[in-house]
Amino acid sequence: MSVAGPHLRLPELLVEKVVAEALAEDLGDAGDITTAATVTPGARASGAIAARKTGVVAGLQIAEAAFRALDENVDFEVLIRDGERVQAGLQIARVAGDAGALLTAERVALNFLGHMSGIATLTSSYMDKISGTRAKIIDTRKTRPGLRAFEKLAVRAGGGLNHRFGLFDAILIKDNHIIAAGDIGAALDKARERAGHMVKVEIEVATIAELREALSHKPDAVLLDNMPVATLKEAVAEVAGRAITEASGGVNLETVRAIAETGVDLISVGALTHSAPVLDIGFDFDQGG
Amino acid sequence: MSVAGPHLRLPELLVEKVVAEALAEDLGDAGDITTAATVTPGARASGAIAARKTGVVAGLQIAEAAFRALDENVDFEVLIRDGERVQAGLQIARVAGDAGALLTAERVALNFLGHMSGIATLTSSYMDKISGTRAKIIDTRKTRPGLRAFEKLAVRAGGGLNHRFGLFDAILIKDNHIIAAGDIGAALDKARERAGHMVKVEIEVATIAELREALSHKPDAVLLDNMPVATLKEAVAEVAGRAITEASGGVNLETVRAIAETGVDLISVGALTHSAPVLDIGFDFDQGG
Amino acid sequence: MSVAGPHLRLPELLVEKVVAEALAEDLGDAGDITTAATVTPGARASGAIAARKTGVVAGLQIAEAAFRALDENVDFEVLIRDGERVQAGLQIARVAGDAGALLTAERVALNFLGHMSGIATLTSSYMDKISGTRAKIIDTRKTRPGLRAFEKLAVRAGGGLNHRFGLFDAILIKDNHIIAAGDIGAALDKARERAGHMVKVEIEVATIAELREALSHKPDAVLLDNMPVATLKEAVAEVAGRAITEASGGVNLETVRAIAETGVDLISVGALTHSAPVLDIGFDFDQGG
Amino acid sequence: MSVAGPHLRLPELLVEKVVAEALAEDLGDAGDITTAATVTPGARASGAIAARKTGVVAGLQIAEAAFRALDENVDFEVLIRDGERVQAGLQIARVAGDAGALLTAERVALNFLGHMSGIATLTSSYMDKISGTRAKIIDTRKTRPGLRAFEKLAVRAGGGLNHRFGLFDAILIKDNHIIAAGDIGAALDKARERAGHMVKVEIEVATIAELREALSHKPDAVLLDNMPVATLKEAVAEVAGRAITEASGGVNLETVRAIAETGVDLISVGALTHSAPVLDIGFDFDQGG
Amino acid sequence: MSVAGPHLRLPELLVEKVVAEALAEDLGDAGDITTAATVTPGARASGAIAARKTGVVAGLQIAEAAFRALDENVDFEVLIRDGERVQAGLQIARVAGDAGALLTAERVALNFLGHMSGIATLTSSYMDKISGTRAKIIDTRKTRPGLRAFEKLAVRAGGGLNHRFGLFDAILIKDNHIIAAGDIGAALDKARERAGHMVKVEIEVATIAELREALSHKPDAVLLDNMPVATLKEAVAEVAGRAITEASGGVNLETVRAIAETGVDLISVGALTHSAPVLDIGFDFDQGG
Amino acid sequence: MSVAGPHLRLPELLVEKVVAEALAEDLGDAGDITTAATVTPGARASGAIAARKTGVVAGLQIAEAAFRALDENVDFEVLIRDGERVQAGLQIARVAGDAGALLTAERVALNFLGHMSGIATLTSSYMDKISGTRAKIIDTRKTRPGLRAFEKLAVRAGGGLNHRFGLFDAILIKDNHIIAAGDIGAALDKARERAGHMVKVEIEVATIAELREALSHKPDAVLLDNMPVATLKEAVAEVAGRAITEASGGVNLETVRAIAETGVDLISVGALTHSAPVLDIGFDFDQGG
Repeated sequence: MSVAGPHLRLPELLVEKVVAEALAEDLGDAGDITTAATVTPGARASGAIAARKTGVVAGLQIAEAAFRALDENVDFEVLIRDGERVQAGLQIARVAGDAGALLTAERVALNFLGHMSGIATLTSSYMDKISGTRAKIIDTRKTRPGLRAFEKLAVRAGGGLNHRFGLFDAILIKDNHIIAAGDIGAALDKARERAGHMVKVEIEVATIAELREALSHKPDAVLLDNMPVATLKEAVAEVAGRAITEASGGVNLETVRAIAETGVDLISVGALTHSAPVLDIGFDFDQGG
Repeated sequence: MSVAGPHLRLPELLVEKVVAEALAEDLGDAGDITTAATVTPGARASGAIAARKTGVVAGLQIAEAAFRALDENVDFEVLIRDGERVQAGLQIARVAGDAGALLTAERVALNFLGHMSGIATLTSSYMDKISGTRAKIIDTRKTRPGLRAFEKLAVRAGGGLNHRFGLFDAILIKDNHIIAAGDIGAALDKARERAGHMVKVEIEVATIAELREALSHKPDAVLLDNMPVATLKEAVAEVAGRAITEASGGVNLETVRAIAETGVDLISVGALTHSAPVLDIGFDFDQGG
Repeated sequence: MSVAGPHLRLPELLVEKVVAEALAEDLGDAGDITTAATVTPGARASGAIAARKTGVVAGLQIAEAAFRALDENVDFEVLIRDGERVQAGLQIARVAGDAGALLTAERVALNFLGHMSGIATLTSSYMDKISGTRAKIIDTRKTRPGLRAFEKLAVRAGGGLNHRFGLFDAILIKDNHIIAAGDIGAALDKARERAGHMVKVEIEVATIAELREALSHKPDAVLLDNMPVATLKEAVAEVAGRAITEASGGVNLETVRAIAETGVDLISVGALTHSAPVLDIGFDFDQGG
Repeated sequence: MSVAGPHLRLPELLVEKVVAEALAEDLGDAGDITTAATVTPGARASGAIAARKTGVVAGLQIAEAAFRALDENVDFEVLIRDGERVQAGLQIARVAGDAGALLTAERVALNFLGHMSGIATLTSSYMDKISGTRAKIIDTRKTRPGLRAFEKLAVRAGGGLNHRFGLFDAILIKDNHIIAAGDIGAALDKARERAGHMVKVEIEVATIAELREALSHKPDAVLLDNMPVATLKEAVAEVAGRAITEASGGVNLETVRAIAETGVDLISVGALTHSAPVLDIGFDFDQGG
Repeated sequence: MSVAGPHLRLPELLVEKVVAEALAEDLGDAGDITTAATVTPGARASGAIAARKTGVVAGLQIAEAAFRALDENVDFEVLIRDGERVQAGLQIARVAGDAGALLTAERVALNFLGHMSGIATLTSSYMDKISGTRAKIIDTRKTRPGLRAFEKLAVRAGGGLNHRFGLFDAILIKDNHIIAAGDIGAALDKARERAGHMVKVEIEVATIAELREALSHKPDAVLLDNMPVATLKEAVAEVAGRAITEASGGVNLETVRAIAETGVDLISVGALTHSAPVLDIGFDFDQGG
Repeated sequence: MSVAGPHLRLPELLVEKVVAEALAEDLGDAGDITTAATVTPGARASGAIAARKTGVVAGLQIAEAAFRALDENVDFEVLIRDGERVQAGLQIARVAGDAGALLTAERVALNFLGHMSGIATLTSSYMDKISGTRAKIIDTRKTRPGLRAFEKLAVRAGGGLNHRFGLFDAILIKDNHIIAAGDIGAALDKARERAGHMVKVEIEVATIAELREALSHKPDAVLLDNMPVATLKEAVAEVAGRAITEASGGVNLETVRAIAETGVDLISVGALTHSAPVLDIGFDFDQGG
């Protein structure tokens, strides 16, 4: 796990656009009036991005882009890569460049890095809890508006997998869709008829009876919603490999292992993205820097 | 506190823009393929936004805008306003309109509402802890990129006040600015010389000695960084009303009251925005809806 | 097929954005200087959108949006819906509103409608050729930049299905990816390991040997590239239902039936989107209008 | 014709913007998940853009920009320039750079290049048909929304000239404008009164009588709409050099020469942009690349 | 001149976009914090837009759009239209609507209206000076960045005509283009060869000799640059109707009549757009409003 | 005053965005058709930006960005910096690069530079008039839409200070806010209660009585609106250092010194931004360039 793979990078044009918007949010039209008043133009500085707490790193591509947006020649050396664990007190990256640019970009860089590393760290905690089982931890669409691609990357950095990205790339039939379509069979049949061959179809079921009805219409995956552990076990046996199984609801760090041991393929956890606390990461300027 | 005041509303054009971006993130170019496959065009539905946990509501303007973006005639009735406390299980708002639009917009609406209410609820918890003191809870620039205005509104809804919005609307001189400018006095003098008359100047100090040096150059406010409670008390006495006092660092729900009792004016808490867990809020379709 | 289903509609916010850009392209900053010089403000007009040639209609949502962008109260009555066949000379829709708005929006409305109906018509011709077989016609990513969602809707209107939307929503491993990954098995294994459970994996093969190697790594679909009809038949037998089969290459209106009769599931046709001629559609103002 | 002149280049900022949008359409927020899963970061590759069919090249500036957007150091060597004819099987350009970037950008680059070269090739076919006459082939506003500047460049590359760009840069009075203004004379007089001195005024006429009425009000150009060849000849004689003459309607590769031989100055052909099939152009990776 | 014609309106989508940007500039993300703190939500107000000085009005479409952007039901009654003269002290329009919206939008509305009316008023002064001559006053490309369409409308409102809009809609060959092309003849020939038939070609000349050389290559217009009045007269005689004549340079309210009396067709004045002082226009809330 | 400080620079990303929009306004989609027709690709040129009139320079960062947007390797040498005075006829900067790029960007560069230098020059004239007094000249929100940051920089370059940037960064209570809030005390109390500690509160008063009422509620600043010089003097005495004093209304180059001598801290002048004539600045190509 020593090299961050390309699955831990986002499209560069997307990163530049979102970083530019974040900087614009912080700078307004008037810019960093504190730095303008106090820092000599052309002065150089260097420093280190360091973890104040232990966790898993995510977001270095974004942090680097924030500094580079204000100093295209900034020197950004990664010491610990996305997806790797950093111990409290250790340096994650070293940065050197224009002093004003570093001061101005610091907060935007850290806001991305802390938020994304917080998600990666929480995901990693869930993965640790279920180690040895065959289950995987996945995310949901309960993300911060505008930051979904960033948060989903962080889940991958923490060792999790991603559920569908949005409403457009896969079909997930929930209870209200079933009511609208008539019944489970009608909903699944309509979905399959309309979907292209590269689109998977998943359906939410709450009981074994619903599960059986769903399986007779061949979904690619079934979301087992809020089932007690015993029911989950029964459901996995019922499915018998005919569909991917996803457990959802009531998942936390205390309950997750028991859920994993039911034999489900996937456990989805909304908290990964909607409630992960920040990983405390700071920027320390070098002395004399 | 029964009516959400205008200070709990954002500019409508800003809300429409950010909501449109959040919907585009979720819908892509292909749209909600599940709803398209299963819901009859023109069908109507209604339902309630309800709290699963007790907390303080924030973000109803945004939630309504998300539904309205997809159904301009949606009926959105607010039962509990931004800034009010909702008990677990109670309804916050009722929504009626095009069934497809409600299903498609639901997640975006709840993502804003849950995130913002989470911040309001945490802010409110801090405010409760310090009730009876003269201190106020304020936020920081440690916000989710692109969501600062939304998160700062949520802090206000929770009873807190806002620190500066960004780098552009106030001067906050930190240690690295002081190093760059030479010393505390030089930094404050330069800042005052450049700043317009409507711009306030705050400076970060870590010791009583630094505080004294700063006060002799007449800052509008002093940020007392990471000081033990005893030192904070000494600092407040030293300032003696000559500047606004802000305590920062090491603040959590256990420590905040002792800090407030030192007599500081303001206590800034990064966790309000960077680590508030979501408030669990759901959308329940009416039976037959 | 008398009612255009929701799968023939695009997200309204996307349509408004692209229509606004198309109008801006045509209007510039100075606007329609011919209409400004010759048409009395406030004058009313009406007319009909009519087909000059027989074909399948697609794009009415967009055409209506173009008129509505310039006259929000325009009256737009659809006579023949997306996905329906229109005979040469018949009216597709009737439009009434501000005369200047109609004259100014006419070309943008017709450009969308003619282009999309051309694609629907060509798709329909392919579908007619293979009627009675089990095969389906699908599109490719060979689309006009910026217009993919519009062109893919037109394919659906013509009775076809859509391949993946872009590089982000499904995995399609081509020869160069295989070379980069090492071999077919390595490529498929890596893809499966990284992909979320809602992402399908397809692989391109050119020979029966490659097909066998691929099948042993369980792809969701196989793209049978440029195979002669006899080889296609052999390939379908080899697959024996273990994966979706897609024929690609050398497909035209003369060859498509023989390809369909090999038993493949899908036939992808780049020409649907990259070479469909426009369907000739005009706008006739009513006399006295 | 060995060097592509500046009239075959678009503003660089426009190209970068449209290419970024096309890449965003193809990449979404999640990016190229096939390449991310299979290609080693940092790997290099090279290949050739080659014509599968004979035709006239257009769009190399855009194709290069697509590759450069993902690899700013890409090596892009043009072998056959915009406006030149390429024989089937020959290379148009050579590309070398980051392997992942080449794979990801390939389709966007080819979509622009194939579409624009298709238009250039068709324009060139029309020009060949009328060689030796004094007429020129021109385009119309029947373009693909959002791509007008690209399609008009392709027409120039094929040897044609451009009609007005949009509604804003010249006045073209059609039948409905005449009805709105009262009569031909009133329409022309109003147009001339309002137009700045750098704006030309053209009017559509369908008969010799209308032509005479128009000429008495001194238009810069007359559009002779759907006139038989004999009438066109009469019209050209009637004009006698007092205005530019444009023939329009019923133009195809069979009829165009007879129309040109009537002596008209210009022949406008909607099919150039609305119905040109793609020129088949591929990208071949080098062996071992 | 009692009704503002369509030539005094801009495309509505352009107006909405620029007004939204102007409001965003003034409101930032935090909005109008003064109004939020002091005005009761839902309160109504009314008032009048009134001229403090006499002048010609321009920009009411934009002013109305600014108020409407914040209150879609605002009542906006125009008393004096674009292009009409208003006496100091008189009302131009009456506005009624949401009190907060009126207070917030007021400055943006007045900034457009004052700036545009200032240009219209100055243009009108120039027109008055040359009344009775055959010359017309025209503008230049010396406009405020981003506001050209608005400023050119204001020139028309003041009775002037517009020169070309930008670099894209007409050819104007200046001295440096002539040097680059070789000589006057080469520049004109190249321009004519490349330009479509709807594009006019003008050339700048500084002497009678240059003028003669230019005329032999048939430009549509000649810009007589910085010529003394006597030379201008000679130039007009030399041209003898073979091209449109434009005088430029050294034009002010003192010199313009003498220049007009030389018989030139057009006099271009940069000051119209780059140096017109604002027309002082205010917004007076009604008593009790 | 020999080096332009960082307070005379705008955020680079803002400058690039606004410059790109200004170039797009001038270039349209078709680009600079004059330069395309007449200038040989790859030709080099050089020249000087020179003042035709004496004044204070502002906007060189923007001018350089305009040239660099079209030729990223342009050589731009500043001879006289923002904030410095240039004598008529002297060079301000030298530019060398691609000939076509220089010709195309010239007008956009000069439009920014002339407009901003005009504002700096007028501001400087006001500052000269009040030299020796303690007053400072400040601007208002009466700016050209979309250009506020540029115009406020120009005011600083001319030696002035900036009032608040917009409605979002400070509270300025005017008469209508007072009416809405009830009275002066209520308005000030509400404002203070809602405002964060970094937000200053100013209130407009028209009489000594209003001033006294305001002072008893401790505003940070008072705007003394349209007071005669004698009243201003009385007001300054009344304030006695308890608030910042700003005089406003009836200020021009004749009256400003008398106002300054009343002892007010600040004098706000709308004309700085809304009525400053351009400073005449041109671009002279070198001979043979």
